Amino acid sequence: MSVGSSPATARGRQAPASVLTWLARYRADHGLQVRRTLLDGMPGWHFDDLGNLVHQTGRFFSVRGLETFDVDSRQVIESGPILLQRDVGVLGIITRRIGGVVHYLMQAKIEPGNPGQVQVSPTVQATRSNYDRAHGGGATAYLDWFLPTPSGQVKADSLQGEHSAVFFHKHNRNMIVSVDQDVPETESHRWLTRTELRDCMWQDHLLNMDSRCVLAHLPTLPVGPSRHTDAEVQSWLTSLRATDMVEARLVGLDQVPYLGDRGVIQASADFRVVGVQVSGGNREVVGWSQPLVEYTTTREEILLAAEYRGEPHLLIQARREAGSRAGFEAYPSVTHVGRDSPLSEELQELALSSQAEIVYSTLHSEEGGRFLGANSRYVIARVPDSVMERPLPAGYMWVTPAQAQMLTMGSYTVSVQMRTMLAVLTTGCVVL
Amino acid sequence: MSVGSSPATARGRQAPASVLTWLARYRADHGLQVRRTLLDGMPGWHFDDLGNLVHQTGRFFSVRGLETFDVDSRQVIESGPILLQRDVGVLGIITRRIGGVVHYLMQAKIEPGNPGQVQVSPTVQATRSNYDRAHGGGATAYLDWFLPTPSGQVKADSLQGEHSAVFFHKHNRNMIVSVDQDVPETESHRWLTRTELRDCMWQDHLLNMDSRCVLAHLPTLPVGPSRHTDAEVQSWLTSLRATDMVEARLVGLDQVPYLGDRGVIQASADFRVVGVQVSGGNREVVGWSQPLVEYTTTREEILLAAEYRGEPHLLIQARREAGSRAGFEAYPSVTHVGRDSPLSEELQELALSSQAEIVYSTLHSEEGGRFLGANSRYVIARVPDSVMERPLPAGYMWVTPAQAQMLTMGSYTVSVQMRTMLAVLTTGCVVL
Repeated sequence: MSVGSSPATARGRQAPASVLTWLARYRADHGLQVRRTLLDGMPGWHFDDLGNLVHQTGRFFSVRGLETFDVDSRQVIESGPILLQRDVGVLGIITRRIGGVVHYLMQAKIEPGNPGQVQVSPTVQATRSNYDRAHGGGATAYLDWFLPTPSGQVKADSLQGEHSAVFFHKHNRNMIVSVDQDVPETESHRWLTRTELRDCMWQDHLLNMDSRCVLAHLPTLPVGPSRHTDAEVQSWLTSLRATDMVEARLVGLDQVPYLGDRGVIQASADFRVVGVQVSGGNREVVGWSQPLVEYTTTREEILLAAEYRGEPHLLIQARREAGSRAGFEAYPSVTHVGRDSPLSEELQELALSSQAEIVYSTLHSEEGGRFLGANSRYVIARVPDSVMERPLPAGYMWVTPAQAQMLTMGSYTVSVQMRTMLAVLTTGCVVL
Repeated sequence: MSVGSSPATARGRQAPASVLTWLARYRADHGLQVRRTLLDGMPGWHFDDLGNLVHQTGRFFSVRGLETFDVDSRQVIESGPILLQRDVGVLGIITRRIGGVVHYLMQAKIEPGNPGQVQVSPTVQATRSNYDRAHGGGATAYLDWFLPTPSGQVKADSLQGEHSAVFFHKHNRNMIVSVDQDVPETESHRWLTRTELRDCMWQDHLLNMDSRCVLAHLPTLPVGPSRHTDAEVQSWLTSLRATDMVEARLVGLDQVPYLGDRGVIQASADFRVVGVQVSGGNREVVGWSQPLVEYTTTREEILLAAEYRGEPHLLIQARREAGSRAGFEAYPSVTHVGRDSPLSEELQELALSSQAEIVYSTLHSEEGGRFLGANSRYVIARVPDSVMERPLPAGYMWVTPAQAQMLTMGSYTVSVQMRTMLAVLTTGCVVL
């Protein structure tokens, strides 16, 4: 089942030509050569005694095994390969009022796994390996606006998990810092307005995952009457976390089942780990090999929206993926990782039925430094308000956009998928 | 160094006689016999192959070993005994407007480790072992107001850690549920007003740990101008969590050093694990033996308060104890577990100097089902506003009381010690 083509062009919404030209020029100057290679033939990487795929420095990320088990019975529930990256990255956007209009300093960034290679990323997108220069490369530009302490007014700073079905305990800081000083543009960094970001959001594969995650925190969502109080929304997530009797432990990759061999690790029906060999461009070092996560299919993420007493509400769900650090996190109404639930199929059918209006449908990809052409179609569907009266399982809740964003006050609470949906709203791309 | 006697009587503030009479009568009818015994002679408990002290059912809590290590170097930082209790408990208070005045349904509860045995606890204080009846005892009274879903309006529901220096990943739900229905009092349960709770708060060892933790969430704190924005306060905790490169892993108790023998486990300079044999009373089952945590000294917790532009602010610090589930949590300005820092001593001296005014000083004890006479003196000291201008290390921050409470929006964020301080403020016991 597919939602079909994007409604972007139908509505005359498309990315600003100036942004597309900037990116095209950047790619022409810095494009990479990316070739697939086998995992067990990558320089600098090897399989250790436990079968784990690791880098010789012990840094970047490694491929391990993970077992989830029931806390009471100690029985293993499921096991499989997972990626471990202990580095906490900084995803930061500088914002500044220029000529009375708020601007955001965005970066043209080339990554080997990006469809189209170049995408718009935050001002800074750096893991500790990057800024400690584990690559042996140069310092990360603009990082001192964020670390060790923000040089400006912090507008958002939240610690959120990243793809807990693929990574174990991986999390990043999502920062927005407002500055007064003049920060000059460079070849790689440009000041964009929120209107430009809004229009970029209509375009497939343009705003990268990290941009979407940070933009989700823009304090632009109206606070209106809500079906549930803020305390009830918090209680909903607390309840699921408190009754969660599943824990996870890392084991050797050799201790868990996977298809394929050491050349390509088929981790599950959902993703595999493949190797690539990269050369060219102005990345921190010239030429390297690395593993990347490849999805087995284009995914579909759907957010249902309806009105309660005239106020827009979103149907969110909470899920506990194996690698999550603090248990349940918020996801869109329908998410690929939860597609097997009966309700998921029902909601998907509803979103695609004649009862619903698709107000957003765009392809976005996961971060190209760790994912290879991993595409998801993000859909927002307005459904009849009466849908809100249907009884729902405990894992679902109707909340206002501001309440969904409020959950980011806690650490490890809002998934990448849900933050992407929020960014569609915070940038004003879709006004519900 | 000691803060001396409580200022309670000096101010004429003391617990209501009706509450004291109720508790005295309850103790007379249900008092326990508690005798010390050796850990290795307790029926139902044994040391397993790894040296861990466990219950034969595998439930309640066990004594394990814990190692913390540096994520990069994998070097062990420290190791020692720790308690493991995977049960997530429910600490819940029902509240109801009676005759126009908000009342709270509180419980007279006997625990073997309580100084004075009986203290005022929440309406419900139950671990999953309790309400699954692992004791073989009766159902927990009033639990169905909270589980599986609250039967009323949720006012607070947050998941918070518990003594991360003693327990590994232990956490509880802190719930307040407002109801309209008539809920009759019983011998063990009484409706108290906030004024009565306020006066109880002046008295040593009267409101138990769980009551204090839940009352910290009362939505009674005024929201006023603050020195730092809410985003800056969130950023402060995020920053510490994001740069935390320490992780912890459970190991066998035999793998970590401790003094004493299997009769009494001297876990650290701070606490030991001892055995008690209990009989009598109306607890779920009659007669049992269990381990309890005993502090080696009466502790001192101090919260500094000052005004910023006429608005009260509190000096809080963030600490990462070995057993914390999500890293750094908020603590008072001076906390026993962090007493070794140079600033800690300086702040303590300041609080006790003639420059400061002690506005609160009361002894409270930790939960008597797991702690044996574990006493801490809680002190709130008003210091000159100029103190706020002193430069502080990254782990400290001046926040308003409402901002400190706001941190409970996230899971595992505010320590028992800091929640006790907040309860002094939310009950109106101290008005800054």
